[in-house]
This record gives sequence, structure tokens and C-alpha cells, in this order.
Amino acid sequence: MPRLDPDRLFPTAPRARDLARALYDSIKELPILSPHGHTDPAWFAQNAAFADPATLFVTPDHYVLRMLASQGVRYEDLGVVPLDGSAYEADPRRIWRSFAQQYHLFRATPSRMWIDHALEHVFGIEEELTPDTADAIHDTIAAALTQPAFRPRALYERFGVEVLATTDGALDPLQHHKSITQDAWQGRVLPTYRPDAVTDPEAPGFAQNLAAFGEMTGEDTGTWHGYLAAHRARRADFIALGATATDHGAATPQTANLAQNEASALYERIRHGAPSPQDAALFRAQMLTEMARMSLEDGLVMQLHAGSWRNHSSATLRRFGPDKGFDIPRAVDWVGGLHPLLETFGTDPRLTLILFTLDETAYSRELAPLAGAYPALRLGPAWWFFDSPDGMRRYREAVTETAGFYNTVGFNDDTRAFCSIPARHDVARRVDCAYLADLVCTGRLTETDAHALAVDLTYTLAKNAYRL
Amino acid sequence: MPRLDPDRLFPTAPRARDLARALYDSIKELPILSPHGHTDPAWFAQNAAFADPATLFVTPDHYVLRMLASQGVRYEDLGVVPLDGSAYEADPRRIWRSFAQQYHLFRATPSRMWIDHALEHVFGIEEELTPDTADAIHDTIAAALTQPAFRPRALYERFGVEVLATTDGALDPLQHHKSITQDAWQGRVLPTYRPDAVTDPEAPGFAQNLAAFGEMTGEDTGTWHGYLAAHRARRADFIALGATATDHGAATPQTANLAQNEASALYERIRHGAPSPQDAALFRAQMLTEMARMSLEDGLVMQLHAGSWRNHSSATLRRFGPDKGFDIPRAVDWVGGLHPLLETFGTDPRLTLILFTLDETAYSRELAPLAGAYPALRLGPAWWFFDSPDGMRRYREAVTETAGFYNTVGFNDDTRAFCSIPARHDVARRVDCAYLADLVCTGRLTETDAHALAVDLTYTLAKNAYRL
Amino acid sequence: MPRLDPDRLFPTAPRARDLARALYDSIKELPILSPHGHTDPAWFAQNAAFADPATLFVTPDHYVLRMLASQGVRYEDLGVVPLDGSAYEADPRRIWRSFAQQYHLFRATPSRMWIDHALEHVFGIEEELTPDTADAIHDTIAAALTQPAFRPRALYERFGVEVLATTDGALDPLQHHKSITQDAWQGRVLPTYRPDAVTDPEAPGFAQNLAAFGEMTGEDTGTWHGYLAAHRARRADFIALGATATDHGAATPQTANLAQNEASALYERIRHGAPSPQDAALFRAQMLTEMARMSLEDGLVMQLHAGSWRNHSSATLRRFGPDKGFDIPRAVDWVGGLHPLLETFGTDPRLTLILFTLDETAYSRELAPLAGAYPALRLGPAWWFFDSPDGMRRYREAVTETAGFYNTVGFNDDTRAFCSIPARHDVARRVDCAYLADLVCTGRLTETDAHALAVDLTYTLAKNAYRL
Repeated sequence: MPRLDPDRLFPTAPRARDLARALYDSIKELPILSPHGHTDPAWFAQNAAFADPATLFVTPDHYVLRMLASQGVRYEDLGVVPLDGSAYEADPRRIWRSFAQQYHLFRATPSRMWIDHALEHVFGIEEELTPDTADAIHDTIAAALTQPAFRPRALYERFGVEVLATTDGALDPLQHHKSITQDAWQGRVLPTYRPDAVTDPEAPGFAQNLAAFGEMTGEDTGTWHGYLAAHRARRADFIALGATATDHGAATPQTANLAQNEASALYERIRHGAPSPQDAALFRAQMLTEMARMSLEDGLVMQLHAGSWRNHSSATLRRFGPDKGFDIPRAVDWVGGLHPLLETFGTDPRLTLILFTLDETAYSRELAPLAGAYPALRLGPAWWFFDSPDGMRRYREAVTETAGFYNTVGFNDDTRAFCSIPARHDVARRVDCAYLADLVCTGRLTETDAHALAVDLTYTLAKNAYRL
Repeated sequence: MPRLDPDRLFPTAPRARDLARALYDSIKELPILSPHGHTDPAWFAQNAAFADPATLFVTPDHYVLRMLASQGVRYEDLGVVPLDGSAYEADPRRIWRSFAQQYHLFRATPSRMWIDHALEHVFGIEEELTPDTADAIHDTIAAALTQPAFRPRALYERFGVEVLATTDGALDPLQHHKSITQDAWQGRVLPTYRPDAVTDPEAPGFAQNLAAFGEMTGEDTGTWHGYLAAHRARRADFIALGATATDHGAATPQTANLAQNEASALYERIRHGAPSPQDAALFRAQMLTEMARMSLEDGLVMQLHAGSWRNHSSATLRRFGPDKGFDIPRAVDWVGGLHPLLETFGTDPRLTLILFTLDETAYSRELAPLAGAYPALRLGPAWWFFDSPDGMRRYREAVTETAGFYNTVGFNDDTRAFCSIPARHDVARRVDCAYLADLVCTGRLTETDAHALAVDLTYTLAKNAYRL
Repeated sequence: MPRLDPDRLFPTAPRARDLARALYDSIKELPILSPHGHTDPAWFAQNAAFADPATLFVTPDHYVLRMLASQGVRYEDLGVVPLDGSAYEADPRRIWRSFAQQYHLFRATPSRMWIDHALEHVFGIEEELTPDTADAIHDTIAAALTQPAFRPRALYERFGVEVLATTDGALDPLQHHKSITQDAWQGRVLPTYRPDAVTDPEAPGFAQNLAAFGEMTGEDTGTWHGYLAAHRARRADFIALGATATDHGAATPQTANLAQNEASALYERIRHGAPSPQDAALFRAQMLTEMARMSLEDGLVMQLHAGSWRNHSSATLRRFGPDKGFDIPRAVDWVGGLHPLLETFGTDPRLTLILFTLDETAYSRELAPLAGAYPALRLGPAWWFFDSPDGMRRYREAVTETAGFYNTVGFNDDTRAFCSIPARHDVARRVDCAYLADLVCTGRLTETDAHALAVDLTYTLAKNAYRL
């Protein structure tokens, strides 16, 4: 008997539940399009076995780490390596036990649902993870990982992935993507151009990054003109390996549209590092507009993820490095922030700019009104803390009435937790089918349209928006 | 067989659905009170036939235009006339076909529900609008529009409208309202005093507007005193034609309460146009307080619609003019903004100031707390992007527990799309009945009280709040 | 037949309703923990009879006052005493009649549910309160209040209260708490340290407050060092009488972490009163961090209630004093505001800092992400305007997926309306059970876990978080 409820996430009213199930049954086998995520291309290039259960499920997953930390579990005890060389737990079994000991913390969270799904559907485990079952489950997973069927390429195929995008820095040599391309394997693992390290003057090592950027491309990054040429060159490199998109992380969605001589002067001020905060912010803002301009030239879809205060706990940053669960959202102003970029490119339907927010209130107030008018804009799915059943439902309820379905772009799993990919797409498909079923049962959508939309939300919108 | 589900928008749980239907059946035939909207008084004065299906449903409806534009349809192709004299589509049939071609974009949006309702209930059309049925539906509508039963006065009566307010600039000669008053026709079509063109120093042609304002009223708008007297005179003109309310649009709800000598000095600074942004904002803020003061004198109910960045796309503004779907909401501060006005008049129960927001988060955080305390305040219904089933439900859920029902004012259709008026009121009535039914079924309201409230929300609250 | 629906607040879908009822039945008799509230310790020290129905239900309840005021009822007519000595209604029966006359204003509000619950469950009244029944109900309550069974201690026991915290100023002599401690009565009525009068330089009489603070403690509050020592002394006094927590009210959650010599210089600038607004704000911010530091020393749990513009209507403040229903929420920045404090103490699991917001949008955007990472943080329950069925549901939906259940602290009734305490806890228990039942019925939680959580949310979390 499966542990997961086969009707999970469907409406509780009987007719709506039956319809949601029917919609879900019609799309549940569609291939997975994963146009935005953080898996490691080395997995697919090298196809080595995953190391152990802790490395697969606990140590690299900042959703898991942060929840355990919030209740006083130390990162060292979860296998996170302190930067100062002090001691940490290296035994996967002991890490796994610590995790199982605190598994109740995850009740009703998406992490719990993803992990339960992976345990059952990837590893065939139907027991509940508890302190008592921890060792047995650890051993089942560890044994499976030694099998060929659990290597990255086999899982990619078993998961029904059609295309998987990774996220790669502008300075990444892309050797793993090159290997994958040159290999006989049929999987489509595409890079995504993420240039923050050379567009944010406050990024660590910014001046050296610019130097490396010049070397990689043969362009003179000592000038604004050469710096832009370096971006064009690297974007072309990414495109040659299959990239269809760029991705930009920003604390705010502020954009700017300086005259080129002003932009050039600004670049001169910031390129040595140590910019004023105003100049740093202005340069980041200007570069969003420059990236949009290049997207019009080369056709890369542009993604903007805005609104997070990265590494809010500087003690944690110093001790364990970035991306350890202390990225905290803030309110941002999309309407004012995007205005300079939209004035320049917003009404050009050749541009696709996909927006992701961590301030949910922006959906109904700002983002759906913007995307429901500007041809260049599309709305990315509910993201990060909102990659969850209630988060997705609120997203649909906030967006659909103003921007419709066709200004959205399907689901992104956005994950580095490979085994959670089927679970995450399954949650999105169920929540969307539940939403569609409720619309039908309240007379707001025909059943025929609901069936068409189930396919569009699962597959077609992502395929079209990301030009896959 | 009707295309629209007779139980649409009711709860899906059986007992709640039955109760919602019973509540709805008890109020569905009540007359329509439409105390805020944008229909053209010329329609009712002249009672001419509407031109064609495109003019009735597509070209003037910015909800429709913006959604089509967001997917790359050009405004020219929808019959919108470019200001620079360049070409545009003038054939209503071709415009209608473009609309039908993209009708799937409106799935699950209120526009779709309103249009489907109008097609079925106003024009008797039970087919779905698709590219295949577009021509036949166009011809059915076009044929109907030639009939007397589809002229404005006949539709007004058939829709069961008891009173309909239009929105009219301070400089409007009101000749159509005069005609209606002098005519034997029994319809009540009332003007509403909307003085933005003479209260916003950044309005186009502000200095000329003030001159015209002086000429119309015989007052000397070269002085603060004369300017205020001109307002009083025009308000009296509106009242003489039945007006019961004023309406004020503002980017923010900022108010001010300057001493009269300071206000006079400010007026002197701004009256020639070209004010500083600070002075312009301060004058707008001061004028809200002045309008409240006059409302205490003459009894006009005051409406404040705040929080929209008008004409966000300046390219669209330049090419097609204002009100083309690019008015985008922003977060605003009601608690600080209204404070000066409320300090002066907020506890005076003779004033009625009705507040409308486009930032939904303000409902539970600011507006319901304010309206649940200040006697002068009432909350307008969910507006614009939130004139929708989910928008209305969220409004009730955010407002009722803090401010109750009796600090709200019933429904506004706020539309220039005449044929959508029955549809919009029908949606509001259904959503309110669904909400009341859910309250009863969760033991939060008695069935007796729900029946009383259904009448109040549909009719009595609007009648009382707008002093109709 | 009871007037209150025994299944109130449960889901409407049958299976979910049955499960919610089963969960509720399993925890409804658990003792009440009330770790934050505003009852008067004199009631329990002196155990005198409550005066009359108006004093019990109307005059001191700002939820009730504000709603009546919002519809034009004058505070004088509700028994609120004007500070200028002008006339007011002193007859409880007439006040009660005014209240009954307007009782329809409370339809579907929590006030209505609490009062109906108290009438039925505390006083055995099963009639609806209407103008017609007002006198009879008044007399029933008045007669009951003369009985020993309706004295404060008897009600405390009958309500099943296990512990009840009051909120007490830093300058409070705590004589009632001393009496209670010295008395043979077994009730646990604990003080809570609320130092706003000596931490907010803009508090009325601040300089005199500091002088009194010095006298009470024997410390020299003329110096920063002595001022801190006075806090330590008073905190120890509170702890000696059972206190486990402090409480801090603030317009914003801004914190600061100055060097001690800077803090000392700041104290020197503000201690005489009449500080600059910047200094006042900075001192309040610094004192939150100082209180956290002391909590690490003495173990008091720290509560922060932020985001209200107190006494927004200055006319009402002047005429009737503070706390008369005109405290209005505003948007605040938790992520930036708390940063200085969290940098200092946020990752120390020995500190417990419980956060309460009146800006609901902060839950999913800021507070759940913060509390889901920082070991020192916990989230207080939905508060004030959100101490309501929909408010509580939105709280759970916004918080759980990101921070789980175990970073929350159970329910606070936060009330001075003693007879509403069972009603308020009952609402919270029902809403939580409904939420858990929906999670089970949508496959997001096992039934076993739901039963465990029902106990935790009702009892264990509050007991642990408040160290009771």
C-alpha cells in the first residue's frame, strides 16, 4: 500500500476531486520540462554514482538545513563543512539519524512531501522515516545508489525528463556541458547564462572576475564596449551548447537606461571594485537593461529573480559560506523598478522577460497587471518558499483573473536536489489540476478548456516561453 | 440549454451551495444600483443605437485591449485610433475576428465571464465564441443593435437599473444630464463630480483648465478664495442634476491640512502650471481635505480611488492616449496619507468618505482597521483588477472580521461597458451569497442574518452610503 | 438547544468536518495556557464581583467600542469617561441597550462570536441578543455576577485555566501579584515585564519615569550603566513573582546594536526627555537589543509586538485617553529592522524572541523565512485584528509551509475581556483542528501526526516556548 495518498492535493469536495483526478490522469505522464534549476552538469557528464543518503537528501538542501537549524541543530552536525577547518560530522549514517530524529519538524511542509515522494517513488520505501526506521532506510538508499539504475543518466530517463537546464556562471568553462553535447547520450542538459559575478560590482572578486571575463573571451573588459562584447561572446558560447535563457538574481528589480556615454563612465568608476553603493546599484540596474537589449539580438529568454536579502546572517556566511538558508525576502517595487527597462523594451513582443518574486503581494498588485499588459513580460511560477501547494494555489488565484494563464510559463523546479524533481513537478501538476477543477465546478471554466489548460500548464507554456 | 452554469460561483460543498442558491434567489431580482461608473450620458440623452459589436465589446474596453496586447496583438488592429494619424483597422467584423481568435486568453478571467453573460443574457447567444463562430455571433449582435429593444434606454430598463451614476469632469457642461432631466424618460442617470483636471497641477492644460473653470462659474480662479468658490458653484450645478457624490483619482492617498493662508500661497505657486513635484503633490493632498470640507457643507459623498501609476507605458500614451490598459497599481500608505484629513474630519459622522484601493494588502492591514473606527470612513468594493470572483472573496475575507459589513457600501460596476453591467452585478451578488453561505455553514452567521445581509449587500448599503 | 453550532469553524466538506471534530474532541478539554494577556491582576488578588454587564462586555472592550464608534455611536454613550469631565452615560442598562441596538454591526466578526459564546457558556443564555431581549439578558448577567460562582477565581477555575500571564509596566509595584503569591489560592497568575514607559523616550513623562525607576530599584538611572542595572533589578522582581517573559510594543521592529559607549552617549542625550525623533527611534531600537542581551542572562522569553500607529485619532486621544480603538497597523520592515539584533543574538538557541505582526503580508515574505532559519526566533499567533477565524487560517497557510509548526508558539488570547478567554481559545482550537483536518484530507499530513499536532498547537508549544 502506498504511503502517499493517491488523491493528495486534490479538492476535498467530491465532484471537484473527481474532476481534478481526471485532469491529472490525463497529464501526469507528460515529459518533464525543467527550464530552470541548479543540478550539477557534472552528474550527467560523468554519470558517477551519488555518494550516500546524506549527501543526496540532507547536506546540500538548504530547505532542510534551515529548518533543522531553526530548532537548534548545528550545521556541523549535518555535514556542512566549516570554512575555518573546524570539526564536522562526516559519517552519512549519523547525519541521516540526526535528520530522522527531527523529521517531525517538516510536517506539512513541501520538503516533507518531496522527500516522502522520493523515498517511495525513487527508492521504493514505504515505511515512514522515523528515528526507528532511519538506519534501515539509510541502508536501502545506500544500496540502491550502488546500482546502475540509480546513476544520474538512468534517473534522468526514468524521471521522464525531456530537457533540463542548469544555471552556470558567466565565467564557467562549461566543460561538462561540452562533454554532454559531444557524448552519444540523448539527454538534453542545457546551460543557462547567469552573469551576476560580472554584473554586480559588489560580487566577491569583481575586478578579477572582469579580468577573467576578458581573458576567456579575448575582449578588452577594460572598456565598456569591450565588456559588452565579452557578454555577447559568452552568450554565444552558451547558445552553442543549447542555452535558451539567461538568469539574473537581484536584491531589487531596479533597472536603469543610461545613455551609452553615461554607462561607459559608470563602468569606468566601478570596474576596479570598491564602488559606491549608489554606483553599484545603478550598474546592476543598467546591466538588466543591457541584457534585455542583447536578448533582442540573440533570442535568449531573460529571467529575473528579485527580492532576496542574501546571507542575512553574516555569522553563518563567515562560518559556512553562502546559500546556507539565510536568504530572506523583502518587499520590492516592481512597478517603479522595471519602468526604465519597460519604457525601452516592454512593448516589444520579441523580448521575453520572465519575472520571479518572493513578495507574494506583488502578484495581484503589480506583476499580474504588468504582465497582463506588456508584451515582453511573463510571470515565472511560485518560487522558493512558495514552491509549495498553498504557495502555488495563491499564485494562481492572484494572477489568473488579471493576467490569464497565457502570461505564465509553466513550472520550474529550481532545485539542486535531483531526486526531488519528479516530486516537485507532481505537486505542481496536482495543484494546477485542483485549481482547474475548482474553476470548472464553480462555472468559471468549461471542462474542455480545463483539459486543454492542463496540458498547457504542464508542458506547452514552458516549451514556448523558454523556446525549448 | 444555457451555457453559463446556473450555480456558478457558489461553494462546491453541497449544503453551502444549496444555501448560496437560496440566498441568491431571494435577491437576484433586486434593482441595480450603480453609484459609480463610466457610461456615457450621451447614450441615455440621445438614445441612439450602439454602432457595432467591436465598438460595444472590444475597442473601448481596456481590460480586453490590455490582455490582447500582452500577447502581441497591436492596438491598431483592434480599432484603437493612433494619435499620429497612422492606419488602423476600422472594420468591426475584422476586429471581432481578431478578438475571437484570441478569446482563449480570457479563460477564467472576469472579462470572459462578463462577455459570455452579455452574449447569452443580452443577445440570446448560447454558442461559445470561437474563431469558427465569430462571424455568426458578430452578425447576431449587429442585427440586434438595429432593434429598438437594444437602444440604451431600453437596455437600462431591461437590466433593472434603478439609478446609474456617470463620472463627469469639473469642466463638463453636463448638457446630456440636463437633457435627461428635462426629458420625460424616467431613468435616473446622475452625474458625479470628478475635479481632477482642476485639482491636479500636473494635469494636462492645468492653467487653461483653471481659466475655463473661472469662466464657467463666474468666479475669479486667480485667487484661492475664488478657486474654492468655483468648486462650490460647480458642485451645486452637479447637485442640481441629481449628483450625490464626488470622485477623486490619485496616485497616493496623501492628504494635507494647511492653514488657509498657506494653502492660498501654495495655490499662487501652482496655478500657472509647471509646479515643482512637491508643490503639485501638496496641492493634490490639500484639495482632498478641501473637498471633504465642502462635502460637509453640501452633503456630497466623497470617493477616493488611489494607488495607480497612470499610463505606465509612455510609448502607449504617446501613440494612443490615456486609459489604454497601462495603469499599474503600487503600494501606498493609507494610514499616514489620510491622517491629516482624518484628524480634521474623520470623527464627523456627517462626512462619508469611501475608499478604494488597488493594493489588496491594505484591506486587512490598514483600511478595515481605519473604517472600523472612523465614523467618516467607508470601504468601497473590490475594484478594477479585483472586480472579480477571487478579488471579491478576498475583499470580504480581509474586511469583514475587522470592519463588519456595515462599513462597506455594496457593489460598484465602475464600467464603461454598458452590456456588462448586469453581468458584473450578478457576479457580485453570487460571490456575496457564496460568502454568506459559507459563514452560515461554518457557524459564524445565522441563516436569518444571512438573508438580511444579502439584501443589504445588494441594495441597502449602496442606497444609504451614496444617499440615493 | 444551543445557539452556537457545535460544528462551527470546521470545514464544510464531510470527511474533513468529521476529522476536524474528532481532533477537536481530543483536545477541547485541555487546560488553557494564557501566556500573554491584559487581565487585571487585582481581580484575582481581591476576587471581588464584576460590576455589571456593561463594564464586563462593553465599556473596556476596544473591539466593541471602535465598531460602534465607526457607525456614529458616541463613546460617552457607551460609558467611556471623557477626560475633560463632561457628561457620560453611567447607567449600565442604558449602555447595554445601546450595544444591543447595534449588535447587528458585529455580524460575522470575532467579537460577536466571543460574546455569543460567553453569553451561552458562561451565563447560560441561549436567546439572541437583540433590542427586544436586551433587558432580560442584562438582568440575567447582572444577577449571575452577584453569585460566588461568577467571581474571578471561580471563573478562572471553571474556565480550566492552568496559567494566566498579565502585562505589567516596569514601574508597576506588583502588589496584586504579590498578594496572589502569598495567598493560598492555587491559580497561577504571572506578571510580564513590559518596560515601554522607560524604554521609549517619547513616552509621556519619560524623565519622571526614569527617576521613579531609579527610586524603585535603588539604581542610579542618571547613567546608562545604572539604567541597565535598574532593568536587571526589576526583571528579577518580576521573575520572583513567576514571570517568564517580557513584552515590547513598538511602532516598528527596528533594532540597533551600538557600542556601549555610543549607547551611553545616546542615553545621556535622551534621558531628560524631548529627544530628537532620530534619537528616540535609535534608543528604542537599541533597547530591544539590550533586552535580548538580558534575556540571555536571566532566561526571560522576549515578545515583540510591532507595527501599530497608536492613537491615530488625536482628538479621541485627547478626549478619552489612549487605547480607545484607534491603533492602526502599518507596513513594517522586519528583515531590515531585526537585522542588528539577529546579527548579535539570532543564532543563539538560548534566546527565544517571539514576533507578532499586524502586517499579514510579512508572514510569508519575512517572518516565516526568518523564523524558519534563526534558532532564536519564534512566531507569535495571529494577533489583534487577526485573532479571528480567517486571520488564524491565513496565518497557518502563510507560515506552515516555510517555518513548520514547531517555530510557532500556540495561541495567545491577548485580552482584557476575561469572559472571552474560553471563547477565544475555543476559536483557535477549532481553526487549528480544521486546518489539520484539511491537511490530512489533502494528503499532506498523516492522521497520526494530526492528532499529535492538535495537542502541540493547543498546549505543548505554548508551554515550551514560554517556559511555563
